[in-house]
This record gives sequence, C-alpha cells and structure tokens, in this order.
Amino acid sequence: MSDVDEQLQVLTHGVADIQPYDEFERRLRQVAAGERPPLRVKFGIDPTSTDIHVGHAVVLRKLAEFQRFGHTAVLIIGGFTAQVGDPSGKSATRPRLTAEQVTANAEKYLAQVRLVLRDAPLEIRDNREWLAEMTLADVLGLTSHMTVARMLERSDFAERYAAQTPIAISEFLYPLLQARDSVAVHADVELGGTDQTFNLLAGRGLQEAAGQEPQCVLTMPLIEGLDGSAKMSKSYGNTIGITDDAADMYGKAMRVRDGLIVKYLRLATDLPRAEVDDIAARLADGRLHPRDAKRRLARELVALYHSPDAAQAAQDRFDVQFRERGVPDDIPTVVLAGERWFLPSLLQTAQLVTSGSEARRMVAQGAVRLDGEVLTDATAEYDLGRLDGSVLQVGKRRFARLQADNSRTSVDGNG
Amino acid sequence: MSDVDEQLQVLTHGVADIQPYDEFERRLRQVAAGERPPLRVKFGIDPTSTDIHVGHAVVLRKLAEFQRFGHTAVLIIGGFTAQVGDPSGKSATRPRLTAEQVTANAEKYLAQVRLVLRDAPLEIRDNREWLAEMTLADVLGLTSHMTVARMLERSDFAERYAAQTPIAISEFLYPLLQARDSVAVHADVELGGTDQTFNLLAGRGLQEAAGQEPQCVLTMPLIEGLDGSAKMSKSYGNTIGITDDAADMYGKAMRVRDGLIVKYLRLATDLPRAEVDDIAARLADGRLHPRDAKRRLARELVALYHSPDAAQAAQDRFDVQFRERGVPDDIPTVVLAGERWFLPSLLQTAQLVTSGSEARRMVAQGAVRLDGEVLTDATAEYDLGRLDGSVLQVGKRRFARLQADNSRTSVDGNG
Repeated sequence: MSDVDEQLQVLTHGVADIQPYDEFERRLRQVAAGERPPLRVKFGIDPTSTDIHVGHAVVLRKLAEFQRFGHTAVLIIGGFTAQVGDPSGKSATRPRLTAEQVTANAEKYLAQVRLVLRDAPLEIRDNREWLAEMTLADVLGLTSHMTVARMLERSDFAERYAAQTPIAISEFLYPLLQARDSVAVHADVELGGTDQTFNLLAGRGLQEAAGQEPQCVLTMPLIEGLDGSAKMSKSYGNTIGITDDAADMYGKAMRVRDGLIVKYLRLATDLPRAEVDDIAARLADGRLHPRDAKRRLARELVALYHSPDAAQAAQDRFDVQFRERGVPDDIPTVVLAGERWFLPSLLQTAQLVTSGSEARRMVAQGAVRLDGEVLTDATAEYDLGRLDGSVLQVGKRRFARLQADNSRTSVDGNG
Repeated sequence: MSDVDEQLQVLTHGVADIQPYDEFERRLRQVAAGERPPLRVKFGIDPTSTDIHVGHAVVLRKLAEFQRFGHTAVLIIGGFTAQVGDPSGKSATRPRLTAEQVTANAEKYLAQVRLVLRDAPLEIRDNREWLAEMTLADVLGLTSHMTVARMLERSDFAERYAAQTPIAISEFLYPLLQARDSVAVHADVELGGTDQTFNLLAGRGLQEAAGQEPQCVLTMPLIEGLDGSAKMSKSYGNTIGITDDAADMYGKAMRVRDGLIVKYLRLATDLPRAEVDDIAARLADGRLHPRDAKRRLARELVALYHSPDAAQAAQDRFDVQFRERGVPDDIPTVVLAGERWFLPSLLQTAQLVTSGSEARRMVAQGAVRLDGEVLTDATAEYDLGRLDGSVLQVGKRRFARLQADNSRTSVDGNG
C-alpha cells in the first residue's frame, strides 16, 4: 500500500463527508510527490468551553491523524468572538469574556488538546490577531461575498426564520468571521462536525475571493451521549471527559447504549478501521455479546487517554467491584422517561421501596447504592443521563437496572 | 396663530408622513417653551450624484423650512459609503470613489445645496468622521440590534428575496450605517423621501440602543418626472435642474403634465399651502385653465431659484417666442410610446413627412424645429421625456404636439 493510499484509508475513516473529494485526494498525492508542502489543516475551537469530552475529541483525533502523516495542524482559538460575545447581550451561548478569561480558558483547553494532538507539526493561532484590527470597510468587503438567501439556507437559520424566531444580523457575520480565519491561515483543509458544514464551505468562497485555492472540507459525524440522546453534555452526565480518571472513564464507557458501541469505537478510539468493521459484523450476527464489545470500548478509551496498563487495571477493578456488589444476572430493568429524578421517587418507581418515607429511611441507613456507591442525600436529584445503564440497589437483595426511555429525543446538537 | 402652530402648518405641508406625530409636535412645543434647544434635523446625501433637480430639492426645501424656524439643519455627506462603494464590484449604483472624488463631488453638491438651504443654523458632517474608525466589534454591536426578518420587510429587499435576486449581506449593513449617522449627530428629526422610510426608522432603534431619544421621521413624497414617469432623471430629460438658467427652467416647467401641476406647486415651490389649495380647487372645477396654472408654476420656480424679476422676464420671452413660432392653437397631439425616437421616424409618426427621405431633406433644409429650435442632425435620437409636451414643426404650417403615452410606468424611484 502506497503512503497516499494509507493516508486515504486512515484519514477517510469515520468521516461524514469530504468536499470536494477529488481535490482532497489530489492534494495528498501532490504532497507525497513533493509538489506542494504538507497540507495546512485547520480546526477552530471556541474558548468558552474548557472541558473536552470524547465528542469534542472526534475531530481533534482526526486532526492528529493528519499530523501523523506530516501535515500541519492549524488550531484556531476563537479569541475574538469570545471577547465580543453577543453585543445585544441576549445570547447565553455567546457570553462576553475578558481578554484574561480567553487566555486562561485557552490555556486550560490547550492543555487538554495536547492529550490528543502531537506537539508538531502544530500551529496555534488566536483569531484576535487578524479580526481585532478589521475595519468597517473590511467587514463590508467580507459580507459582499455571501448572499442573504444562501445564509438562510443554513439549517438552523432556516428553521428559526420559518418559526419567526428573531435572527440578529450580527449572527450572519459570525460564519463569515470563521470563514475569514481560513483566509488568514491559508488553510488547505478544514475539519469540523457535520453541524459546521455550512460555515466550513463559506471559507471556500472567501478564499476564492481572496485569490487563494479554496480549502477542502472534511466533516465528522456528531457523536451521541452515552444515553443515546443527541446532545452530549457534561451537565447531562452522559459523556466521558478526556481527562476523567481511568476508573471513571471505564465505568462510563460500560454504560454506553448498545446501539452506539460501534460508533464510539469508530469515532472515539484509535482502533483500526478493519477491527472496528470486524466487531460491527460480529455484533450484528450475535457472535459477539454487546457487553464484551463494551469492555473493548472501555479498554480502548482508557488506553488512549491513559495507557494500556491503566486500561487493564481499570477493567480488573471494575470486574471485582461488580462481583463484590453481588449484582445478580437477572435483575429487572426499569425504563425511565423523566429528565430529572428525585431520589425517593426514583426508588419508588423502581419498586425498591413502597413509600417515600421508607426511601428516606433506607437512605438514612446507608442502604441505598447507585453503581455500588452509597447515596447519603435523600433530597438529591439525578439527570437521566447519569442514571441510564446504572444499577440501583437497596439493602443486599433489592436491585434494579435503570434504562432511559429510548423514545426521548433531543435536537440541541453536540454541546 | 402661535409660533408652534405656524411651524406645524408650514412643516407638515406636503409631507407624506411624520412618525410619531405626537412626539414631533411635543418637541416643537418644548423648543418654543425654551425647554430644549432647537431641533437637530438630519438629512443625508450621497456624494455620488452632483446635479440637484427639483425632485432632490423637495426634501432640502423642507429642511430649509426647519432652518427658518431656528432649527439646525444637519447635512450628512455619505463620504464613507461612497469611498467603499460595493466591495464586490457588482453594483453600478455604488461606485467606489476616491477620497478626492468624494471631496470634489461634495463641494459641487454643497454649492447647489446653498441655493436652497440657509447658511445658518447649518452643520455639515461627513460620515467618514465616525464610520471610518469603526472596528469589527463595533459592527457586531451595530448589527445585533436589527433582525434579518425585519430587514427583509424593506420593500426592495422583500421583492428581491421573493424574486430570488441575490442580496449581499453587505447590503444589510448600509441601512444600519445610515442609522448609525443619527446616533453620531444626535438627530431629533430625520428627513427623507418615502423610499427612505425603513432606513430612517432604523435610526430610531439604534438611538434607543445608544440611550438617546429616538428621532422623529418626516418623509416627503417622491415627485414624478415632467412626463409623469415615476423616475425623475436627468438622463431621461424629464426633470428641471435647480441650476438651469431661467429660460430653460421656465420652458421645462411649461412641459409638465397637467395632472402633476398641483403636486409640483406643493412640493417644488415656496407657494403657501393656502394658495396651492386654492389653485387645486380652481383647476378641479375648471375655473382655472391648466396652462395658466402651469405659467404660475413656471414663474414660481424661476422666482425661487433666480428672482421674481427673472421669472417675469422668462415668462415674457417664452410668450414672445411662442407667438413668433406661430404655433396655432388647434394643432394635433401625437401620443408616443417608445422610449427613444430616431428623428426621421418621429417625423413620420407625427405625420409631418411622408417618408424617411423627405424627413432627411427637410432637416437638411433647416425646416425642422423642436420647440422652435432648428434641428440639423437627421440621425439624432431623442428620449421620450425630452419630447413629451414639445411642439414639433416642419416648415411654416405643419405642427404636432408630442405627448408621451400615459400608460407607461417606471418603478426605479426618484433617481
């Protein structure tokens, strides 16, 4: 297998789309033939979030694969927009950060990024460098290359416009600023989640207007939360942070929905394409039990962010704890629909107690456990994401396996 | 009549709309009571056009009326947008001018403006003063106060969006820049044509966001060309320039369509409201012949831009020439539909010659006249606007009065 074929096999693994594909392949071949320098592969991040979970890491890991083949990772810190925020003050998703906060967040973020990316070839740029000095005349130039109709084709804008939800004109500028970044760094390829496709393509238009070769656009699928909900978010307790300790990471991975095991293996681990395909085939025809595939996923994740030894140790400890907890094989499964659960209600719904007062008494006695951990606060509330896949226990003999109602949906994207 | 009542009578004469009217009246009363300084009355002009015709002058003359009552005329020269133009280079209506061109145009324009405005109280500002230094962060702030849906309600945008004609996002910024001017000069009132209503109202929103009292908006009707077409434009030969010499101005005014006489008197001359109303009433019931009303209009216009004496002289000369030309009272009227007329075709259509060769022969003999002027070029072409209302003559006895087809329409606005 030639180097370019290997690159194509690795780099296209798990991707949602590459536009235009022919051009992408042509550029890889040109680099291999020494006809052009290594590709400049752009990925932009928003310094308002500082905790990276395996969902965020999907694109970062793809970026690391480009580095592996000698291409330059160009990581853009969106310092400008974070500092400007939403000037109308209406949007909670665009808080205004001070220059110091941006720097602090970026540092915290970059420390985590380095768990995924290689140290070289790596270029880290803050878009304050070119956006802060833009004048009104520059903005008019920037905005003259995109039409209102085209912007309103972006699915979220289209939905809001149809629903008569106000869209500030400033919101039309943000995608163009992101596109402007591609011009500033002369990106050959830009990576992003599928929800970013429109913005990434906007970069092509601006680059053409600036006389540059337009970038290729490579998008990765968004990854669902452990509980299967579309929104993966720390506040829902349905994700795995890349800095979680080994035991925590392993335990969380063991809670992933059966239907998501292959997707997680493909997008969140370094398991080679052929092995993932093999696991998928064996799961499909029943030769592989989902629990064993999940153990593989949990081991791969811990090995990736900690070490193979840590992965083995986490697995051993998990197995011991599971046995020690003495959870029988045939415990009942309780399907939960609500988003938030007050502990006494949860215990009653799971039919582990007969009354709220019994629930509170059992908690007071230290007889209630969630995944082996003793619960001491009878007034606690739990997110469904946290409960999904967990084992709830009262005393030594009463158990219930909790499962979130699959019919729930969420459309907020990969937060 | 109290001073404020007089102001209201004069200032509201001929206006299309005042929003909000109560607030407008309240401010005039506050000024009269010494509770606030004289009003700052803004009018913005585009330094790409340099020749002012009576259509442009409608709003300028309203501005001069405010000056008469002691209010400050704040004339904004749109130097910034003229210098930026349309950065995509696609729009002929937004040519990019150099700083020198802007200055030269503005000087030429201001020389004409002074024929209408008083020297004081007058403030002339170039919006380069505050727009040139705007940063991207400022633009994001500006654009956060207006929604896409609201902007798409502007009739021209609505029509283009519906017709799938591209609208660049930069075009959404221009109305906001004009609105930004109102903040910069702390406008109490902004004047404009009815086609500017949306932009003027946008100024209110930005002023409120900036913690200022939002301006009142006073719009004037657009005035049709002499030939009744919606677009008054020098290139159509259907307008009267305010720097035209007295004889020219008088002659052009005598060509105005009968149905427009009252509108011209009301919007383009200083004739008091009561007199215009009286003329309108007498025209309506036949006590006044349109020709006499037109003579009044022509005199008023020349008196306004030259002097009463010049007006009388122009009238006398016009009458003499008319008699000398010996145009009978009962000459036939020829209705013309085409926009451009090749002289031989015109002569044939008017049945003044029987062939193209006769037409050319008559021109060669110096026997063809348009409004008394000998035509010497048999290959000349004329705009319908120029021909409308004119008298075409061949030899001593063949005449035709030319009239543009009333059913023609044009929707280009007041250019």
